Amino acid sequence: MLKANPDYLDLPGNYLFAEIERRVEKYCAEHPGRQLVRLGIGDVTRPLSPTLVSALHEAATAQGDPATFSGYGPYGGYNSLRSKIAEVQYHNRNVPMQPDEIHVGDGAKCDVGNILDIFSKNTVAAVCDPVYPVYVDTNVMAGRAGHIGEDGRWSDLIYFPCTEENGFLPVLPAPDAPVPDLIYLCFPNNPTGSMISGAELKKWVDYANAHGSIILYDAAYEAYITEDYPHSIYEIEGARTCAIEFCSFSKMAGFTGLRLGWTVFPHELVLDGVSLGKLWGRRQATKFNGASSMSQKAGEAVFSENGQREMRETIAYYQQNAKVILEVLTGLGIQASGGVNAPYIWLKTPENTSSWSFFDRLLEEANVVSTPGSGFGPCGEGYIRLTAFGSHENTQLAMDRIKKMF
Amino acid sequence: MLKANPDYLDLPGNYLFAEIERRVEKYCAEHPGRQLVRLGIGDVTRPLSPTLVSALHEAATAQGDPATFSGYGPYGGYNSLRSKIAEVQYHNRNVPMQPDEIHVGDGAKCDVGNILDIFSKNTVAAVCDPVYPVYVDTNVMAGRAGHIGEDGRWSDLIYFPCTEENGFLPVLPAPDAPVPDLIYLCFPNNPTGSMISGAELKKWVDYANAHGSIILYDAAYEAYITEDYPHSIYEIEGARTCAIEFCSFSKMAGFTGLRLGWTVFPHELVLDGVSLGKLWGRRQATKFNGASSMSQKAGEAVFSENGQREMRETIAYYQQNAKVILEVLTGLGIQASGGVNAPYIWLKTPENTSSWSFFDRLLEEANVVSTPGSGFGPCGEGYIRLTAFGSHENTQLAMDRIKKMF
Repeated sequence: MLKANPDYLDLPGNYLFAEIERRVEKYCAEHPGRQLVRLGIGDVTRPLSPTLVSALHEAATAQGDPATFSGYGPYGGYNSLRSKIAEVQYHNRNVPMQPDEIHVGDGAKCDVGNILDIFSKNTVAAVCDPVYPVYVDTNVMAGRAGHIGEDGRWSDLIYFPCTEENGFLPVLPAPDAPVPDLIYLCFPNNPTGSMISGAELKKWVDYANAHGSIILYDAAYEAYITEDYPHSIYEIEGARTCAIEFCSFSKMAGFTGLRLGWTVFPHELVLDGVSLGKLWGRRQATKFNGASSMSQKAGEAVFSENGQREMRETIAYYQQNAKVILEVLTGLGIQASGGVNAPYIWLKTPENTSSWSFFDRLLEEANVVSTPGSGFGPCGEGYIRLTAFGSHENTQLAMDRIKKMF
Repeated sequence: MLKANPDYLDLPGNYLFAEIERRVEKYCAEHPGRQLVRLGIGDVTRPLSPTLVSALHEAATAQGDPATFSGYGPYGGYNSLRSKIAEVQYHNRNVPMQPDEIHVGDGAKCDVGNILDIFSKNTVAAVCDPVYPVYVDTNVMAGRAGHIGEDGRWSDLIYFPCTEENGFLPVLPAPDAPVPDLIYLCFPNNPTGSMISGAELKKWVDYANAHGSIILYDAAYEAYITEDYPHSIYEIEGARTCAIEFCSFSKMAGFTGLRLGWTVFPHELVLDGVSLGKLWGRRQATKFNGASSMSQKAGEAVFSENGQREMRETIAYYQQNAKVILEVLTGLGIQASGGVNAPYIWLKTPENTSSWSFFDRLLEEANVVSTPGSGFGPCGEGYIRLTAFGSHENTQLAMDRIKKMF
């Protein structure tokens, strides 16, 4: 008897950003003409830089010429792109990396979502709280999360609370605590904007190697690091035997619409004699057909000299927004963190208002769209995430309106 | 204790096309300088048509301008594209279709591969034999295929032999036979090139509705139909309550590198009160971030007047190849079918040679890359698939060499 996947039915309500969209649409329908400023969903707003646009034009022309047309590409991406990623993202930071350890895909979210496919069903995952919802939801959808409790936590997941007290950094499991099989870490962190030091990250790598865990390291925001922190987990000794790293062109170079990312499986990452990179390759060969060739061409251009310079300019633009947001909030006496090594600012709602209440208040009184912290987990309650991805003008406008609110 | 997914380890050997690539690379390394003609993997060779190239240039320019830059799109595709698909692919054939029943993705292979996610684990699937390997392999990887027998068949799958005797068309399960939950059908067929009539397809729709089965209808090659056959399963009465249809821009308009397709979930498709379209939407919102916006813009251009005319010209070009292949084979007294409503020609190997032996012989004696029929299932043994996707010159060259072989 055919049935829908019961694990899907366990998912409560809508995906966070869909629910935000619903509230925003409702507000707009009831208040036509209001100019909203969106500092909610982490989508970029700056256009692709000139070097990337040129690369896209070149790629379009090539697709129209029988001599240069290209169809199916390699499932794991063109070698020219994989080599460039290895060189600029890893070798230039003195991190050894083979191009065939880099698997190009259509975005970190897809790979982070699909990674559970290659592990056995009874895998126990650990996540930070608050956390990017995709980590939790994909475990729920794979039947690996158990049941949701009244506290909003799933019975079969392990949680690392990230709070004001611990500087929004997860604390290693106690020696007698259950050992997670998979440990999701994301630095620079979404949603809190916190960053982890090399010394702290080394503790996690050592823990994973000692306990046979694998760290799923989401480095999608590494380009926003301004201080002396690791950009890749492979900067940490021992990470090659215990970590899979996810990276993305989305926030680095404005590819949220183009779709491009990569995932690293070091050759040393072997489970019971099975290479995880090979297993992932098999998944992708069967269920995926490579990222769009146009996006890959633009991706290569990101690593050219001009591409890198333009990338840094765009990131500096967003970092300026983060600075403005932090300054205004601090001036208002609102507690806020992040924003220095990350495009996210994590602010504590005034007077212990709930996240959704403050979300609604920002929407209604300041016409600013934010992201409620509680959408990222119980420990996010009482917080709001703002992003630095708006234009200077809109960010200033939003902060002026927020100033007026108080 | 962390383990690799044991179901992945059940997969025997390499994915078919990877194995072909391995043999071809080995041959080329041992025989440098040989000019191979590739009539194997079904990749197109004609460039994108002028209207599509223009659309890509426009989209590239738009991505470089802050006023027109677009980031994340809707998970299910831009409404402008979904509306065009509804209009041209369905309404113009008098098939009712709402745009929100059309879910745009990055290719039929990905959607066909991921569709199992939304059904419960104990789902029993039925496939034709021979069959596109992705249907079988994804069931294996999801732990739904049981064990492989010496005959190359999986214990928990139901097979419909498609042979010379039944004109390469599946025969409905007998009244006392086990009822499959999911029925994979692909017409025009890959690999045999056979086509099903509306009357025959109606029998499958009626069977599915009577037994609570769902038909997964792969219509990726519908643009190649030249005779009076259904282009969509929704031309058949009753299909909206029992069929999911997969379609692709790959072979229709040369998007194998760009990546674009769509999957149809009619609103009536409900299982125990759960809308399958909503379930799929939830999967995509969590594990996917939309097809590349550039590809979607090019996809829209396919449905313009010029886009449609150019599309037909390119398809006519490939159909001319199919004609040449069929004529030569017939002239040699080699039995071949398909090629009239499909870009695939299915030829019986002379003297009952095995598929891989004849593959090797074509590779070594004619320097032609084909696809061994046995790679598509036991009933494909003794057959070879040739594709019409080459250039006129290469196709002619390949057929001249094959003529010389005999």
